[in-house]
Amino acid sequence: MSDVKEVLGTYSGDITKTIEDELSTITPDNLAEASVYLTRAGGKMLRPALTLITAEAVGGKRESALKAGAAIELIHTFSLIHDDIMDQDDMRRGMPSVHKVWGDDVAILAGDTLFSKAFEIIIGSEGTSSDQNNKALATVADACVKICEGQALDMGFEERFDVTEDEYMEMIFKKTGALIAAATKAGAIMGGADDEVIDAMYEYGRLIGLAFQIQDDYLDLASDEETLGKPIGSDIGKGKMTIIAIKGLASVEDDRLLEILKAENNSQDEIDEAIEILTNCGAIEYARNLALESVDKAKQVLEILDDSSSKQVLSDIADFVLERSA
Amino acid sequence: MSDVKEVLGTYSGDITKTIEDELSTITPDNLAEASVYLTRAGGKMLRPALTLITAEAVGGKRESALKAGAAIELIHTFSLIHDDIMDQDDMRRGMPSVHKVWGDDVAILAGDTLFSKAFEIIIGSEGTSSDQNNKALATVADACVKICEGQALDMGFEERFDVTEDEYMEMIFKKTGALIAAATKAGAIMGGADDEVIDAMYEYGRLIGLAFQIQDDYLDLASDEETLGKPIGSDIGKGKMTIIAIKGLASVEDDRLLEILKAENNSQDEIDEAIEILTNCGAIEYARNLALESVDKAKQVLEILDDSSSKQVLSDIADFVLERSA
Repeated sequence: MSDVKEVLGTYSGDITKTIEDELSTITPDNLAEASVYLTRAGGKMLRPALTLITAEAVGGKRESALKAGAAIELIHTFSLIHDDIMDQDDMRRGMPSVHKVWGDDVAILAGDTLFSKAFEIIIGSEGTSSDQNNKALATVADACVKICEGQALDMGFEERFDVTEDEYMEMIFKKTGALIAAATKAGAIMGGADDEVIDAMYEYGRLIGLAFQIQDDYLDLASDEETLGKPIGSDIGKGKMTIIAIKGLASVEDDRLLEILKAENNSQDEIDEAIEILTNCGAIEYARNLALESVDKAKQVLEILDDSSSKQVLSDIADFVLERSA
Repeated sequence: MSDVKEVLGTYSGDITKTIEDELSTITPDNLAEASVYLTRAGGKMLRPALTLITAEAVGGKRESALKAGAAIELIHTFSLIHDDIMDQDDMRRGMPSVHKVWGDDVAILAGDTLFSKAFEIIIGSEGTSSDQNNKALATVADACVKICEGQALDMGFEERFDVTEDEYMEMIFKKTGALIAAATKAGAIMGGADDEVIDAMYEYGRLIGLAFQIQDDYLDLASDEETLGKPIGSDIGKGKMTIIAIKGLASVEDDRLLEILKAENNSQDEIDEAIEILTNCGAIEYARNLALESVDKAKQVLEILDDSSSKQVLSDIADFVLERSA
């Protein structure tokens, strides 16, 4: 799958340049620096690359989707900056997070600035019609509302151990899937696809977004500490409601799993015990299958497209979501 | 001037209804409540009313500008919510501010949600072309960038006593004027005006926005405590750089004014002393004249429009900005 990373790399140069150009006019200096900081921190640029690749895969030109892609990356960056404030996460992409460097106030503003810029950029897309720009913008705005709703749902799950699978799926769709779906839909719109194809590309994005998030839950238990960069089972330690924890709680009859999830300070032995319970009751396998099914469905959805190298890349990206190990 | 308040009142019903409708789909409940809270707190709705009145004044229909107006009110509300977090202001419109009721995290998210909704609403404007919706949205997005820049500039003025008049004017234009200018410009766009009129209406909004902010500085020294709802001279007590303080510091030769502005805890006698210095050196009159000139220019700009009752209302609103006493 190093191929996929290479392909993403071939798109990131144009996207980075567009972002740098568009953010170059921000003043004063501290706001400009705080706004551009995370965009230079070497993110994968998966979302904007998906926008450009989708534009090509529906028969359009990547250039026509360039501004939409850059805008979507800025929306993603904005949401990371504000989430890190809310979740008090002090590191992001291996660097101190924006609020750690500039403080909460400037971090709030930097997020707001990127958010504003994103809409300004997308509406200024070139080589596309006003109708296309309009439709792409509506798609992104809808995703932004969902991101906020998803974050609010996620915060509401804290201290709750009765979260249902449906609630969880809604949360991850809104928090993660909606922007990925908007990325591929916007690519289809800017590439000039018809409504049927546009809808299909939204569904493709939604499905790989779900798989992406479920895979995150899976890797927390199934990867190794060195690859993951954090201890195995840290979600269990934090009592986090993942699809695996939810399925496990619904599957086992005694209270031991709930006890461990509720406990404040678990030993590694207790976390290992929980992993064993989750393995034995089939919860881990269930999550893995759910992710696999989503990826399979995503690849089926692509059948609406004519064969092309870009279509193949979209199919490879769907596989890549599950083959990554961190 | 109770007439202007009455006229604003005749527009606020439609705007309020549009906002309520558009926000009714937000979930979960706490996010929905935090998002809608301030929109129900009885703001003047000056900005959206300006959008609708301008649409009429250029010969268009108020309905065509309704969604744009609602969106601009949401942008205004979003900026109040985030500013109150940054400035740690615990009251807003006579009620506890959003972050006091729901906490900083939900307040950040509620602001982000209103921001997202605003763009979604404006792009879904009805009875206007995609080109018009596009242009209105670009106008609002540009104002949003400026609002963030203005807030960053304002925060950068803290602890500084060498702020220049130019710096101050840039800050208040970005923080306050830009959205008012966007409100009138969006109204002109949605009302179907040509580019010359659209630009003129932006200029009208910019000028009354400046007058509005300068009047705020003026009232802090020239109103009375009962009308203003806070002690006279509170800006001096806080060492805040207003146009009056900046002009005063540039006009007087001894250091007494600077001393009082820099001091942490001024007595009322000291504040009265500073007001006397500012009066004697002409700084208060200077600010008042600046506001008067802006309003005069704003009314001259209106001459590009054919006579109508809506044009008259715009002229009255320009006067109203200076005749308000709180």
